[in-house]
Amino acid sequence: MSLTKEFISEQLISLQGKICAALEAEDGKGKFSEEVWEREGGGGGITRVFQHGNVIEKGGVNFSAVHGKLPENIMAALKISDNQFYATGVSIVIHPQSPMVPIIHMNIRYFELANGEFWFGGGIDLTPHYAVKEDAQWFHQQLKNTCDRFDKTYYPKFKTWADDYFFIKHRNETRGVGGIFFDRLNNGHDKEKLFEFLLAVGETFIPVYTHFMKVKRNLEYGEAEKKWQFIRRGRYVEFNLVYDKGTKFGLDTDGRIESILMSLPEQAGWFYNFIPSPGSAEAETIKLLQKGIDWI
Amino acid sequence: MSLTKEFISEQLISLQGKICAALEAEDGKGKFSEEVWEREGGGGGITRVFQHGNVIEKGGVNFSAVHGKLPENIMAALKISDNQFYATGVSIVIHPQSPMVPIIHMNIRYFELANGEFWFGGGIDLTPHYAVKEDAQWFHQQLKNTCDRFDKTYYPKFKTWADDYFFIKHRNETRGVGGIFFDRLNNGHDKEKLFEFLLAVGETFIPVYTHFMKVKRNLEYGEAEKKWQFIRRGRYVEFNLVYDKGTKFGLDTDGRIESILMSLPEQAGWFYNFIPSPGSAEAETIKLLQKGIDWI
Repeated sequence: MSLTKEFISEQLISLQGKICAALEAEDGKGKFSEEVWEREGGGGGITRVFQHGNVIEKGGVNFSAVHGKLPENIMAALKISDNQFYATGVSIVIHPQSPMVPIIHMNIRYFELANGEFWFGGGIDLTPHYAVKEDAQWFHQQLKNTCDRFDKTYYPKFKTWADDYFFIKHRNETRGVGGIFFDRLNNGHDKEKLFEFLLAVGETFIPVYTHFMKVKRNLEYGEAEKKWQFIRRGRYVEFNLVYDKGTKFGLDTDGRIESILMSLPEQAGWFYNFIPSPGSAEAETIKLLQKGIDWI
Repeated sequence: MSLTKEFISEQLISLQGKICAALEAEDGKGKFSEEVWEREGGGGGITRVFQHGNVIEKGGVNFSAVHGKLPENIMAALKISDNQFYATGVSIVIHPQSPMVPIIHMNIRYFELANGEFWFGGGIDLTPHYAVKEDAQWFHQQLKNTCDRFDKTYYPKFKTWADDYFFIKHRNETRGVGGIFFDRLNNGHDKEKLFEFLLAVGETFIPVYTHFMKVKRNLEYGEAEKKWQFIRRGRYVEFNLVYDKGTKFGLDTDGRIESILMSLPEQAGWFYNFIPSPGSAEAETIKLLQKGIDWI
């Protein structure tokens, strides 16, 4: 195979389709709607949105392939000298109806400059409204299994990277129970191998999230859990708007706003100075939202 | 009078008290709660919060006076060479229960460096969920009246500044119908006069917002208006977390998070790709969320 940017984009579109089909099947109600959009500066994307299913309240599985000229602030942030770029990726955020089902995010991307420089980036991370040690452990084990098939150093490195990346500094808490995160992967320039790894990460999303949908969808909850869900979603909004580089890149490069901000939940809340009572499931969750926990 | 930073802070605390009393009186239900907090790096504040009143769902009237050493990124942003600072101000955001009552924001602040440099800044801006031309006109007239008592050039200058500042670039819309905004005011170094103006802006808040509370509190609304309110509040969150310099300053200088993020509504929403039907009050509102409208 010839690993051109066009080929990479095609493979990513195919993955997008597989993921959407798997989510529809597990949810059991409704279909993804699709919007194809073009970007004025070059390229475009396919936004696929799932709303008001049995399990998923609002979910987006977005493909994009944009190109053109990078704005100067992005060039400075990336420390690159060429401004002709091509960026393609699949980006997912799923907000479930139930506070007992975790929020998940997955992103895989390929970036190329006209001068031939390229790299891969991506990650998966899990944000349970109620964190449970065993779930986090299982989740991390799946990611480790995928990483280990390629390089034994990947999981520990990318797990730490995720802890550092998905961190809400002003709250001194992580967004969720972490996962893996990597960027600027071009080591040895074995492009084929790296792309295989990228796709493997993308494919790991399906069994992982459908597992959580299946085992958590019928758990009971009430008003208190719903309120806590709104609070955790509020933190998700804070992370995405204040720290997330993908969101910033999208806003700075005039991406399609509704696709970029797809990641935000349908409803979120900020209840002044809410402090969970000691020993509650909410308080236990906060204890697990810390960097450096070795889940496995 | 001697215009020391301590004197300025005392006057601001007194204004905070007057504003809270006026809001309680007009709301008619409940009282502000108060939290006095200290900042590790120096100084602290008095956060006064009003929740679940008749008119106000969540409102904060915050005083703070913080001092210490500025982080480097703030120094660079402010283009200053001295890092020993004192910053004091009153900051208000009111989110009403009813979508028919506007959100309001007011902030007045004084900033001083150890080397003697100082300036004033502040502003008031109105964010109606449903924008009405006559209301915006009346609102701007009150601000103009206050400005004109000090300098005829203030209102046109500060109105344009507000249009530019309270702008959600990625949405290409203003946060609301604007108001006035000014920063780095130290012209001629007539400190007493400038501080008089600052207080006059702060005092204008009372008649302006109690007016809107009074005339709008009993208007009827239903589910559709409530949904639109969540959407507009979502935009408010986007502005505050992505663009607002006060929020950024607070987060970067380790201010008290619950006081800084007081500005966020109790509930906000992001409904995928919501487009108001042509001719609806929602569509008419969006038309008025533009820079450069000469309301008066």
